[in-house]
Amino acid sequence: MDQKDKNTEASRPSGDAYGESDFFDPRLARKEKMRGAHIGDQHIRVKRSEDFTSVSPGFFQATAKAVTPRDWIGRARYRLKGILIGAPLTTERESHERLTKLKALAVFGSDAISSCAYATEETLLVLVVAGNAALGISFFTALAVAILLSIIAFSYRQTIHAYPQGGGSYSVSRENLGQLAGLVAAAALLIDYVLTVSVSIAAGAAAVTSAIIASGFAQQIDALEHALPPNLNFNVLLSLFFVGLITLGNLRGIREAGSIFAIPTYLFIGSLTLMIGIGLFKTFTGTLAPVEAPPLLKIAEPVSYWLILRAFSAGAVAMSGTEAISNGVPAFQKPESKNAAATLTVMATLLSAFFLGISFLATHMGLAPGEETIMSQIARAVFGTGWLYYIFQIATMGILVIAANTAFADFPRLGSILARDDYAPHQFAYRGDRLAFSTGILALGVIGALLIVLFAGDVSRLIHLYAVGVFLAFTMSNAGMVVHWWKTRGENWQTSILVNGVGAVLTFIVLVIVAVTKFALGAWIIIIAIPLIVGVFLFIHQHYARVDAALVRRAARRVPTKLKIRVLVILPAVNYATERALAFARSISPNIAAVTVTFDRATGERVHRELQALDPAIPHIVLEDPYRDFYEPLKRYVETLQARDADAYITIVIPEFLVRHWWERLLHNTAAQTLNRLFQKHENVAVVNVPFQL
Amino acid sequence: MDQKDKNTEASRPSGDAYGESDFFDPRLARKEKMRGAHIGDQHIRVKRSEDFTSVSPGFFQATAKAVTPRDWIGRARYRLKGILIGAPLTTERESHERLTKLKALAVFGSDAISSCAYATEETLLVLVVAGNAALGISFFTALAVAILLSIIAFSYRQTIHAYPQGGGSYSVSRENLGQLAGLVAAAALLIDYVLTVSVSIAAGAAAVTSAIIASGFAQQIDALEHALPPNLNFNVLLSLFFVGLITLGNLRGIREAGSIFAIPTYLFIGSLTLMIGIGLFKTFTGTLAPVEAPPLLKIAEPVSYWLILRAFSAGAVAMSGTEAISNGVPAFQKPESKNAAATLTVMATLLSAFFLGISFLATHMGLAPGEETIMSQIARAVFGTGWLYYIFQIATMGILVIAANTAFADFPRLGSILARDDYAPHQFAYRGDRLAFSTGILALGVIGALLIVLFAGDVSRLIHLYAVGVFLAFTMSNAGMVVHWWKTRGENWQTSILVNGVGAVLTFIVLVIVAVTKFALGAWIIIIAIPLIVGVFLFIHQHYARVDAALVRRAARRVPTKLKIRVLVILPAVNYATERALAFARSISPNIAAVTVTFDRATGERVHRELQALDPAIPHIVLEDPYRDFYEPLKRYVETLQARDADAYITIVIPEFLVRHWWERLLHNTAAQTLNRLFQKHENVAVVNVPFQL
Repeated sequence: MDQKDKNTEASRPSGDAYGESDFFDPRLARKEKMRGAHIGDQHIRVKRSEDFTSVSPGFFQATAKAVTPRDWIGRARYRLKGILIGAPLTTERESHERLTKLKALAVFGSDAISSCAYATEETLLVLVVAGNAALGISFFTALAVAILLSIIAFSYRQTIHAYPQGGGSYSVSRENLGQLAGLVAAAALLIDYVLTVSVSIAAGAAAVTSAIIASGFAQQIDALEHALPPNLNFNVLLSLFFVGLITLGNLRGIREAGSIFAIPTYLFIGSLTLMIGIGLFKTFTGTLAPVEAPPLLKIAEPVSYWLILRAFSAGAVAMSGTEAISNGVPAFQKPESKNAAATLTVMATLLSAFFLGISFLATHMGLAPGEETIMSQIARAVFGTGWLYYIFQIATMGILVIAANTAFADFPRLGSILARDDYAPHQFAYRGDRLAFSTGILALGVIGALLIVLFAGDVSRLIHLYAVGVFLAFTMSNAGMVVHWWKTRGENWQTSILVNGVGAVLTFIVLVIVAVTKFALGAWIIIIAIPLIVGVFLFIHQHYARVDAALVRRAARRVPTKLKIRVLVILPAVNYATERALAFARSISPNIAAVTVTFDRATGERVHRELQALDPAIPHIVLEDPYRDFYEPLKRYVETLQARDADAYITIVIPEFLVRHWWERLLHNTAAQTLNRLFQKHENVAVVNVPFQL
Repeated sequence: MDQKDKNTEASRPSGDAYGESDFFDPRLARKEKMRGAHIGDQHIRVKRSEDFTSVSPGFFQATAKAVTPRDWIGRARYRLKGILIGAPLTTERESHERLTKLKALAVFGSDAISSCAYATEETLLVLVVAGNAALGISFFTALAVAILLSIIAFSYRQTIHAYPQGGGSYSVSRENLGQLAGLVAAAALLIDYVLTVSVSIAAGAAAVTSAIIASGFAQQIDALEHALPPNLNFNVLLSLFFVGLITLGNLRGIREAGSIFAIPTYLFIGSLTLMIGIGLFKTFTGTLAPVEAPPLLKIAEPVSYWLILRAFSAGAVAMSGTEAISNGVPAFQKPESKNAAATLTVMATLLSAFFLGISFLATHMGLAPGEETIMSQIARAVFGTGWLYYIFQIATMGILVIAANTAFADFPRLGSILARDDYAPHQFAYRGDRLAFSTGILALGVIGALLIVLFAGDVSRLIHLYAVGVFLAFTMSNAGMVVHWWKTRGENWQTSILVNGVGAVLTFIVLVIVAVTKFALGAWIIIIAIPLIVGVFLFIHQHYARVDAALVRRAARRVPTKLKIRVLVILPAVNYATERALAFARSISPNIAAVTVTFDRATGERVHRELQALDPAIPHIVLEDPYRDFYEPLKRYVETLQARDADAYITIVIPEFLVRHWWERLLHNTAAQTLNRLFQKHENVAVVNVPFQL
């Protein structure tokens, strides 16, 4: 025993008041069971435990050894978990990597930038009903989106400077507009993150499927899909694989590994720039033509304002993910705000350029959406079906999967903030083995996967749900900023209010357009879901508040130092197991009685005789139940005792057989469990199992 | 308080040695909660409890009130159960109705007599491959079966006289041939009972289906079956309905209600006698002809000994159920054995006559099995498709369903005997609310229904499994009787041995024939199942023996009067809930300590300060786990304590939140449950939840 241990014992009250001093140090020599020997027998080896290290008197820290299970099932589970998500990390190992602008663009920008992979396609899908000529409108809706994006980006730059600690819509709205606004923003954001996962992954899978179809494997995919249930097509299978992969990766805690994300992001940026560059060059030299002639579309509907608004709404999804940078300001290298703002500008510029470029090329070639994605069609026209095309498709898939990963960083983080504020179950605030918010990650993975299966991995159907949440969050955030500037009224506050005010008004208008045009297509689901989710938030909040209030209200009552304990020993027979239960009862209270519930009188009398022989002083109550129900009469008896003596704390002691195997449990009564359940709602009744191992 | 109650108090040791005397009488005034008031508050009404009546000092008997749940979920469940199976009955209400021969024939004879409803059909199904001429052989196989039946019946008459307490194959074999033989017979019988249910019910349903087809609804049934999954045809649905009905009826305890059974049984006997009578008359007057001309069969296989043996095996199923009367001797009116023997003779005579009659008519008309049953074809030829035909079909269905009911009386009874002998889980010996062996009834219903679904309600496929068990039980029983006569050697023992010896040899020969001819058709399943079931019996027996041995071995060890209790209070925070847990701990032992498992040091230190403020004398151990695992470090700590002090009984006290609704549980940790599970296999550790109601 070293000096420190001696302190431990010396500085604490010992056996005099309560207990014995050797409660204290779990590091003191512990005896290890020898193979086959029982504790208490002689064959025991004395060994110093390595499970804990001493921190200060009475404080011990668990070592990695202490969290490694020792039984083989536990160990097997622990190892499997180790293989899947890695060995547990200590809390202090949380990394606080600061991101360079280059890495930050990959981590926070991939969500927004990746949107251009499907935004053009979605616009064209709306316009397709008005015939080939109408497809040209898509370029102009892209232009409108790009202008809107620059305004939003500009307004978010202000948020970044005002909230260097990270200004998500939830905190900005909650701080400036109140609880309800904050919760509405939070609901919108959570929905958004889920849809980011579903849409990005499904679009990423579509890029792979397109490449496979382009390589001439269309028939094989068809055959495979015929063998699968209706909602599980090739795309869905691929998507579920990706969702599983990202979920596992995030449970491992890859959250901030910027370097891994940089590769596909910059590969995409590079190859897309190359494609648009070559495409524009070929356009001007007049050599750009689609691989297959675009189909001749039937004009089902004339071009109308409604159609143009719908096309705009479809294109507006390109702006999803713009908020991510403003959430992540603290992760930037110093000066955080300046670097974040610069990254935001670069991101918005790239996204606008890409969206416009793709829309121009698609319009110029007269492409129409079909089995193959628009991006894939352009890439084949520009690169041919060579290695450049495949690299481009892989990069597209890569950035889309990375975009989903952004949601996997944001959803659990927002969930943990909501849990800390008592709006979500507290489990969302617990960090798992690898320091990640496991509950949030798993929830996102499961809901995202479910949506993909429900919508059969169809990006176009999923995307209808998307934009409402995005623009609701934008509006709340900008409106919150307006209030913020009004409250603080610092330097140039008028300009700031103007910028965020314009942002708020514009995003609100887009919100209305999006909600109206997409209402019947699925946006109604979101419009119903947001208030429902807010309701759940408030409900949970109320529950936790009730618990706290109850604890405070009760704390005002004096808790007696000791309770009046009455012990009832359930005595089905007198044997070794019940003798131990009686010994336990005698040890915890002088106030004990044995209760035998019997279905026939003879048994009751036999048990009584046997108990008399063992210890005639123990009061014995026999409850004979001619209806052969063990539990209800016992419950009645306990309730009667309770009603007669409200101060008594009734402790029911049950001798419990412990069996080695689950199937052995089928051969015995499980009275202990049932009694636990039976008295589950009785406040002054405790149930103790005194186990007896065979 | 009346005189008796005073005795109660006077005659028992009271407060001096243990506890207080008011443990004693649960009938003493109990306080009822007023609406909205808490126990312990003033708003309490004093009321005399009606849950118990006093039997003798310390002995109380529960009234019907005590077994009626008081919470609304419990009450709703209780009421539903009441509607389905009736109100609970007291043990003393077990009826011991003695049956007249007339009723006994219905109760115990229906199984055997009903066999003639499908035995002819099964014989014809075998012969059908050899063309129309071969069908005539069926009469001769029926004759062979009838002769065999009379020999078996004769040998069973001897068993009835030798075992007036009921001589089932299990008890006769076990007593005379040893444990293993008894278990083999028991396994054969259990299989038999299950098959009786499946085959009889499926055949009963087939009678109804035939009647419906005969009424011209074939198309509607076809349409319905197209809409159902492959194994759920019309017959199966009807069968499942009947199985459910009989299961419920038996749970209600209709077991011995002879009168109910008499109606369909005698309706069947009467109408079948009428049919055979009119049939024979028409045969001799030459006016009997099938409604549809019998199909011209293709000769696929010549008539061979093998085919004849197979036809005989198929007909031999008619003998199933012959044993039932010898099982039920004690239920007969006095003189039991004589009446039972007389009933057996009548039963065997009727069955032989019916089987021969049906076979003769079928052969004479040249009927071949098809969609419609042979019985239905004969009945239509004899009665025409009038009301007599329908009555006959309903009677057929009725007796088949009643036959299944015989199995529902026998299977649970045998199950309870096996459970009493420690060969089956003890649950099989418990009587349910209505005094029936509920576990056995439910098990039989479920397995029977499962077999019907698995075999798509096809009587012919099910029946292949049937005869092996029947003849194995016959052989065991007769062989057992031979040994019995040899052991006792009373009057005329030589004759008795001869009779049972001939029975044993004949049934053994038939057993071999049946096993060989039906082996590939399904009998192999039974030949595998019997040793497996016997294995399970022995396994269970060994387990119970091990438990008893352990209790005896341990009983030899001295159990100390008191245990050394060490209490650990889990203290996540200091609040009302944990203060109560501490008070509980102080009340049960002087040897206590508080343990805080924490993931960060600050929390540990805060809890320590708060505990110091509350009660500085309580030793406090803080286990900080940087890996954020609550349970493993706690387990390690407890194991260390245990290893250091093998005599200590460690009691872990957990403050447990009690929530009102299941969904609220999602918002809290369920540490109590997990700890219970965690220390489930630790013999010297008890876990106590000190509940705290919100």
